[in-house]
Amino acid sequence: MTEGPTALRAADVPPRPRPSGYPPDLAPKLAGREKRVLGDPFGLANFGVNLTRLAPGAASSIHHVHAKSDEWIYVLEGTPTLHVGEAERLLSPGDCAGFPAGGPPHHLVNRGDRDAVILEVGDRAAGDSVFYPEDDLAAAMQPDGTWRYTRKDGSPL
Amino acid sequence: MTEGPTALRAADVPPRPRPSGYPPDLAPKLAGREKRVLGDPFGLANFGVNLTRLAPGAASSIHHVHAKSDEWIYVLEGTPTLHVGEAERLLSPGDCAGFPAGGPPHHLVNRGDRDAVILEVGDRAAGDSVFYPEDDLAAAMQPDGTWRYTRKDGSPL
Repeated sequence: MTEGPTALRAADVPPRPRPSGYPPDLAPKLAGREKRVLGDPFGLANFGVNLTRLAPGAASSIHHVHAKSDEWIYVLEGTPTLHVGEAERLLSPGDCAGFPAGGPPHHLVNRGDRDAVILEVGDRAAGDSVFYPEDDLAAAMQPDGTWRYTRKDGSPL
Repeated sequence: MTEGPTALRAADVPPRPRPSGYPPDLAPKLAGREKRVLGDPFGLANFGVNLTRLAPGAASSIHHVHAKSDEWIYVLEGTPTLHVGEAERLLSPGDCAGFPAGGPPHHLVNRGDRDAVILEVGDRAAGDSVFYPEDDLAAAMQPDGTWRYTRKDGSPL
């Protein structure tokens, strides 16, 4: 096994170069979002962790829910608004929320006037897929762990 | 599915009543450790998240490594010392570290003069077990997800 770092200062990890796997017509919804990958550098495989910075107006993701993977977030800075199903709730530092596989769809939007910073955790259950109730998009995890995005009818993006 | 909370203020979650599953001769090593369970209240099953407070002198766990589950920690407050294999490193708020399944054993000790507070994440891979290099203890996950602790020769505690 390649020796990973002993520890990392999260804010010093370079942001992930590609902002998202979303297609060009949906990618603008994620403008202003920056992710630093905090689990992979240590060789973690079973779940991922990101330090995600949302500029004012930015969203954490498209409204979505995973079929097999759980997700969890913790607010470090700012006041992002959490949307879960039809509900919304203003969060502040020290708040957390969890999103079980197959539960209500969810996403965060930063409606504040300063950046919001969150930790987000999601496991990598084999055969996972993502449902986007508000957009013509579907995502299916491939056997190699990568994601394939299509329209809901299966046609390519 | 039972409706979980939309969000929780992590510090307001009551501490876990039972301090650890360790036997009486090893439990004192964890004195001064307090855990708040932050994933289960949302119905998460695939991984667990704790907000763990370490009083001065307290340890996060016995030196250990999981066979199948990854672990990850993020420092919110204080200056805990991370032990990984034979190395040690003083951490401070904003630092994180990850511990892949089968990697070097690890634990944290708070040698500071104020409490340390960390977030800790670990997945729940089926058939997991824990190796404790410095203590006569073994732990094996049972088919129902609970843990069975024995001495290393398999004898009961």
